[in-house]
Amino acid sequence: MKAAVLSSPGELSIKEVEEPDCPSGGALIKVEACAICPSDIKMAREGHRDLSYPRILGHEVVGKVIQADPALELPEGERIQVWPGLTCGTCPSCQTGRDNLCPEQGVLGFNRDGGFAQFMAVPAECARRGVNIIPSGLPSREATLTEPLACCVHAQNLCDVGEDAAVLVIGAGPMGLLHTMLARSRGAHAVVVEPREDRRKLALDIGAEEALEPSDNIEADTYAAFGRRGADVAILATPAADVPSLLRAMAPRGRICLFSGLPRANPVRPLDLNQIHYRELSMIGAYGCTSGSDHEALDLISSKRVAVDQLITMETSLERLNEGFRHIERRDGLKCVVTRF
Amino acid sequence: MKAAVLSSPGELSIKEVEEPDCPSGGALIKVEACAICPSDIKMAREGHRDLSYPRILGHEVVGKVIQADPALELPEGERIQVWPGLTCGTCPSCQTGRDNLCPEQGVLGFNRDGGFAQFMAVPAECARRGVNIIPSGLPSREATLTEPLACCVHAQNLCDVGEDAAVLVIGAGPMGLLHTMLARSRGAHAVVVEPREDRRKLALDIGAEEALEPSDNIEADTYAAFGRRGADVAILATPAADVPSLLRAMAPRGRICLFSGLPRANPVRPLDLNQIHYRELSMIGAYGCTSGSDHEALDLISSKRVAVDQLITMETSLERLNEGFRHIERRDGLKCVVTRF
Repeated sequence: MKAAVLSSPGELSIKEVEEPDCPSGGALIKVEACAICPSDIKMAREGHRDLSYPRILGHEVVGKVIQADPALELPEGERIQVWPGLTCGTCPSCQTGRDNLCPEQGVLGFNRDGGFAQFMAVPAECARRGVNIIPSGLPSREATLTEPLACCVHAQNLCDVGEDAAVLVIGAGPMGLLHTMLARSRGAHAVVVEPREDRRKLALDIGAEEALEPSDNIEADTYAAFGRRGADVAILATPAADVPSLLRAMAPRGRICLFSGLPRANPVRPLDLNQIHYRELSMIGAYGCTSGSDHEALDLISSKRVAVDQLITMETSLERLNEGFRHIERRDGLKCVVTRF
Repeated sequence: MKAAVLSSPGELSIKEVEEPDCPSGGALIKVEACAICPSDIKMAREGHRDLSYPRILGHEVVGKVIQADPALELPEGERIQVWPGLTCGTCPSCQTGRDNLCPEQGVLGFNRDGGFAQFMAVPAECARRGVNIIPSGLPSREATLTEPLACCVHAQNLCDVGEDAAVLVIGAGPMGLLHTMLARSRGAHAVVVEPREDRRKLALDIGAEEALEPSDNIEADTYAAFGRRGADVAILATPAADVPSLLRAMAPRGRICLFSGLPRANPVRPLDLNQIHYRELSMIGAYGCTSGSDHEALDLISSKRVAVDQLITMETSLERLNEGFRHIERRDGLKCVVTRF
């Protein structure tokens, strides 16, 4: 089969490789669509300490079942979206639905071969919980955005984004925009902070009530935007957010969601903990998505409550994967989906 | 009546003052017991920017109803415990049970005269929600510990301390010990960290499973104490806790409760936010108590699920209030209750 194979950091090429077998307890799919995540590009360019080579990247995957372990009761020909977590299924995290925190956790397209290929094996550790059948009528290209949306669903569940919540989204890249759409679908108010004018405009188009340029006074801006009220929830959808200042922009009991990680070289920030104490703020970490939130995200997409299609700015072929990478790297657009294999 | 009157910072004396009237919408009580909080001592010694003089301190108050507004339907002679919050009752915080965060909030014994006196007025802003009838059989001296226990109840509700949770309590002063007893009453595991040997012993006596001396490696200590598992909840019951190190002692999805404020002169701590992000930790502020948690605390005390009496190490008279202050200041004991007026 054809696959985009990363043979060492910086060495990505389209080549013929052996088609995988259907794993015991798992499934073999013919890939229909696989979206590009910025982490794919980072791994392709720089590699990763824990990556072994050769490796096929891609974890936002949708495919058609070619063969499946009978225990999965998964009919041939069914289209599925794959939650990319590989989990043990028995640890306390797995047993309580927190499978994104399984200490054994691996990720498809990182620890095992992923979706930038004509065929992909869905291992048992993933298939146990991670397979969602796609309703007919939902294009595969849209269904690839299930996993990134699931990360937002998971974070907004942790931070309790509900009706009427005043939500500040920092950053209007694809993840910030998904957060904005999701918050609006929950009946929350959403104000976006983003330096790029085109993305601020886009944020307004997809439902943000205001889109602000970052300033030196996020506190005043937030209170003005929400009408003399701080933010109930602030979501960091960029590693560049100014967390110490953000504390002052929060309403009492406000939740700051550390959705984006901070730069590894410098993840330490000086925080006034009395701001958190006296106003009962919370700072909540969110990392990836659970299999449950993945399921929830596919429901939101297929019911059109979150209209993800408007974020797909490029469709390409496996042969031209590198052009898709450049589209994202140069920030020409938002999401690029590989749909021709 | 006799009262301990603070006429300026450092100037506290027992004198004759006029007995208060029963406020409209409120009640007049004959004080039966009032416990000393370290903040009373701090205000008596140093004053406070927002304190006006003369002022009668004391907010851990129990008394007998002398007179009450008929709307309160509070029979004369009934003993009540008073939640010390003065709130507007109409703001979003009040309307959602978060009355400790009311922006108009005042505190009895700070913004109005408190319980170190023979009689005390319970203003309407407090009586509306803050009056709890004490069941017969519960001594008034024990009922004074309702308010401090309520602060713990409120914090443990915010941090979701439930059955089997691994709870690390930093500091075994009166609040740390109350937290320990409360966590145990919820079926949680409790390990205490405290520098004083006598208090570590006391922590074990009241139900802690281990009591550790602070060390340079809180991470290893916690994992050892909970059997290769980090803490689900860590409660800061001292301003001296090392918060940056504590992050590494937490289990995935662990909650760090900022129960104690940090020293005002230096409340800023450098925190590795990626520790919070990748392991989905939360840092949660808790401040004071709501009227609801006050009610919950009185239930816990009167049903003996939390046996607060063992924390009362001194009982004294209003005349000897200063001796009680010194008992607490010198850390000779834990709680001192004024019971003779």
